[in-house]
Amino acid sequence: ALIELMEPLHAADIADLLEQIDSPDRRRLIALYGVEFDGDILSELDESIREEVIGVLNPDVLADAVRDLESDDVVDLLEDLEEPQQQAIIGALDDADQMVVRQALSYPEDSAGRLMQREVVAVPEHWSVGEAIDFMRGKEDLPEQFYHVILVDPRHRPTGYVTLGKIMSAPRAQALQDMTEDSFRTIPVDQDEEDVAYAFNQYHLISTPVVDDEGRLAGVITIDDAMIVLDEEHEEDMLRMAGVSEEASLSDNVLETMRGRATWLFVNLVTAIFASLVIDLFSDTIDQMVALAVLMPIVASMGGNAGTQTMAVAVRAIATRDLTGQNARRIIRRELVVGALNGALFGLAMALVAAFWFGVPMLAVVIGSAMLMTQVAAAFGGIVIPLLLDRLKIDPALASGPFVTTVTDVVGFFAFLGLASWVLL
Amino acid sequence: ALIELMEPLHAADIADLLEQIDSPDRRRLIALYGVEFDGDILSELDESIREEVIGVLNPDVLADAVRDLESDDVVDLLEDLEEPQQQAIIGALDDADQMVVRQALSYPEDSAGRLMQREVVAVPEHWSVGEAIDFMRGKEDLPEQFYHVILVDPRHRPTGYVTLGKIMSAPRAQALQDMTEDSFRTIPVDQDEEDVAYAFNQYHLISTPVVDDEGRLAGVITIDDAMIVLDEEHEEDMLRMAGVSEEASLSDNVLETMRGRATWLFVNLVTAIFASLVIDLFSDTIDQMVALAVLMPIVASMGGNAGTQTMAVAVRAIATRDLTGQNARRIIRRELVVGALNGALFGLAMALVAAFWFGVPMLAVVIGSAMLMTQVAAAFGGIVIPLLLDRLKIDPALASGPFVTTVTDVVGFFAFLGLASWVLL
Ligand SMILES: [Mg+2]
Ligand SMILES: [Mg+2]
Ligand SMILES: [Mg+2]
Ligand SMILES: [Mg+2]
Ligand SMILES: [Mg+2]
Ligand SMILES: [Mg+2]
Ligand SMILES: [Mg+2]
Ligand SMILES: [Mg+2]
Ligand SMILES: [Mg+2]
Ligand SMILES: [Mg+2]
Ligand SMILES: [Mg+2]
Ligand SMILES: [Mg+2]
Ligand SMILES: [Mg+2]
Repeated sequence: ALIELMEPLHAADIADLLEQIDSPDRRRLIALYGVEFDGDILSELDESIREEVIGVLNPDVLADAVRDLESDDVVDLLEDLEEPQQQAIIGALDDADQMVVRQALSYPEDSAGRLMQREVVAVPEHWSVGEAIDFMRGKEDLPEQFYHVILVDPRHRPTGYVTLGKIMSAPRAQALQDMTEDSFRTIPVDQDEEDVAYAFNQYHLISTPVVDDEGRLAGVITIDDAMIVLDEEHEEDMLRMAGVSEEASLSDNVLETMRGRATWLFVNLVTAIFASLVIDLFSDTIDQMVALAVLMPIVASMGGNAGTQTMAVAVRAIATRDLTGQNARRIIRRELVVGALNGALFGLAMALVAAFWFGVPMLAVVIGSAMLMTQVAAAFGGIVIPLLLDRLKIDPALASGPFVTTVTDVVGFFAFLGLASWVLL
Repeated sequence: ALIELMEPLHAADIADLLEQIDSPDRRRLIALYGVEFDGDILSELDESIREEVIGVLNPDVLADAVRDLESDDVVDLLEDLEEPQQQAIIGALDDADQMVVRQALSYPEDSAGRLMQREVVAVPEHWSVGEAIDFMRGKEDLPEQFYHVILVDPRHRPTGYVTLGKIMSAPRAQALQDMTEDSFRTIPVDQDEEDVAYAFNQYHLISTPVVDDEGRLAGVITIDDAMIVLDEEHEEDMLRMAGVSEEASLSDNVLETMRGRATWLFVNLVTAIFASLVIDLFSDTIDQMVALAVLMPIVASMGGNAGTQTMAVAVRAIATRDLTGQNARRIIRRELVVGALNGALFGLAMALVAAFWFGVPMLAVVIGSAMLMTQVAAAFGGIVIPLLLDRLKIDPALASGPFVTTVTDVVGFFAFLGLASWVLL
């Protein structure tokens, strides 16, 4: 009855369901499923749960499940498994598939070679529409998914592609070469999957040929797989910017979750102690005017916020390649001006608040000026740190909280307390 | 010569180039382009720049450029323009296109109706492969983009679809109904585009029929357009979480940029003052022990960091629908336990640091305990605030910095200074 209830569900939804229940319930549900367990469900499962499920599945059911999958899905399923589980699954495939999968695994992780399917439709570039149609109609098994007929030269190098839709409506005698798409471009097997996803999104590709070192057709990447990568890259950026390990998953247990957070909390602890050392320098000043202790977190908080804003804009713009060497100077200048203007605006506002609150005019001047300086420093750190990391080939999203807020905390405390000790005492 | 240089560039790259140079250079480049200016470039341009470019273009060139575009691209181009520019462009289209575009604009903003193309290939559900092939080969103009033949009942309601690839290899006599895809699902015209993008990513759709209130076929959405929405929604989440207006663009000028940042800076100023009022409550305590002023930002900073971590995980999980009513309690519990464990760990570490630094054992106990409490509060705020906003139909990404860090600042200062005044004095 349960199986009947779940029958109409898409594999992706069943996988989500398995992810959302806890481990004992998961085992029970899988046992109930028995031999009906589908390979697609495995593909859709989050990596953290996948190993557990594979461990619980009956080996025969597992072998059946995996044999139904396309080669690129088997690779995606395998690549994050432990060695023994990998071998068990590869062993369940027939010989031809085994070879295909082993070859895919020989490409670097997160490369186009891992993402592509080997099943392609390629024809000689001099063929006509009619020849292509007859070839396809004569073939035993066309790929499950294909949207273009790829034209190749005699050395099997792709030179263009024609959409199936155009082939459908064209006269049989027309040369395929006269109907190729402008959007044609090839992707090297070792290209990073992040660049692949960028190309699909930028050029609105639907599928695109992947080529080996000699430019020969090795496979095809389809947009549905590129979309998954785009989504994962976004998740990675968002989590990294917030200082969470990008491998964190909602189905992680307490210890795994702790580990995913502790690294950046530790970095933050060290940098926060560093900022406190700055305060310590001025402890005599605070001792003489305790209002400084009350107000100083405002300066730091406003700086941290402005820095985070600029950083988010910069990280996103680097990812979309809208922030490049060409316009970096202009954007940095813009951020500094914006920081100065917002600093002046909010510095003035805070100066008025401080004047009324504590009735010390010079304190108002001090906090206003400190805020202005901190906002400019925040703008500078927020854009220069991600750009610098990118230049150093480090993911700019790692310019997360700790780095930028250290800059703003240190500058904020130093400016505010330094000015105060100079002007007020 | 310049035009020759740019000829091989994709419209998306030319648009990026136009976005990256400044306004006078942009005008010069467009003037150089003259009549060659392509409609696709307009489509690819960021909204903030698009109005400027349209204003500069010669009306004849503009009319030519727009006539080449597909209906969904014209809609995308138009929807954010001012009324007079909209009318000018619609006026340039031929009558049939005018009607199509006006109808699309009658659907709610950000709905499936705005995203779909009207150009579809639909055939009666009882047709055979051969009939479908003959129909397509007989048609004058097939859509520029199509991947499925949609089967419709006599009332024009979609009942399934068949991929072009399967049609290519099937015998002419085979019934289309026997070869439909399992992934088939329809999308209502008024569905939010965010849900559309989710469905494409979750179910690996390539194109999917859109239906009106009576279930009749109204158009088709293709994955390339869904991918753009997915990317935009990510940008929105990332910018909102950092407290930046989601309409901000890298090509905004200084005033627009200031405006996009000032709102949340203002909110942050108010909440930061609120946190300072908490400190003010304990100013006598600080006056007696200035070490408290030195250490208190560490407690707040660690709390803010932990809160941001939990919040990022929660916002992402709500967006991917991995965090739902079913598992919310379990995830909240997990976050609280993680907060307590990390709080204990880092509280202990900081207690040791404080003990050596200031040599006051009770101060070490106070900062350790305060840190534990703040980490638990951060975990609670980081997950409950986004969940609450989601329940209230407010975008959880708006639970950005200011909200969560106010909770952690207030709890942090209160716990640390409150404990200190109770235990130490
Ligand atoms: Mg899932
Ligand atoms: Mg992968
Ligand atoms: Mg990656
Ligand atoms: Mg695939
Ligand atoms: Mg990345
Ligand atoms: Mg771009
Ligand atoms: Mg662009
Ligand atoms: Mg479009
Ligand atoms: Mg839109
Ligand atoms: Mg939206
Ligand atoms: Mg389109
Ligand atoms: Mg959203
Ligand atoms: Mg999901």
